[in-house]
Amino acid sequence: MTKFMDVHHNMVGITEEDLRAAHMADLAIQAEESVHFEQAWADPEAGVVYCLSEAPSKEAVQRIHERAGHLADEIHPLPLIV
Amino acid sequence: MTKFMDVHHNMVGITEEDLRAAHMADLAIQAEESVHFEQAWADPEAGVVYCLSEAPSKEAVQRIHERAGHLADEIHPLPLIV
Repeated sequence: MTKFMDVHHNMVGITEEDLRAAHMADLAIQAEESVHFEQAWADPEAGVVYCLSEAPSKEAVQRIHERAGHLADEIHPLPLIV
Repeated sequence: MTKFMDVHHNMVGITEEDLRAAHMADLAIQAEESVHFEQAWADPEAGVVYCLSEAPSKEAVQRIHERAGHLADEIHPLPLIV
């Protein structure tokens, strides 16, 4: 299992409710791909959302996001953590 | 205090030692700006580093990174967290 940071752009004006609903949609199905979404953060002014997860692959993360209706624009494996 | 995610680009090939040294340089002086760096993650292949902090302002985060020798390319306040 590897940590991943995925990034969603073009999210200007996202609200706490939007972020929570999107995160809950991921959590509801994440086990089907052995993904665990740990945290999500948003900067509504710049329109960027970051999601931290632990998953078997980048593709597994994207499959969950795709099925939940919000494809990630970038997904980065994070082999280095301090 | 607000959470911030800052991003450093052009870090292709960064090693665990590099990341640790940079993080330690931040930690050594962070209290002077009331910043607390919580975690840093790197994707050495894409050359991107993410740092999560709690700080009084974006400028305080950047002042620490600047004095430690590694200006951030982006600094995002994170008012929304789930």
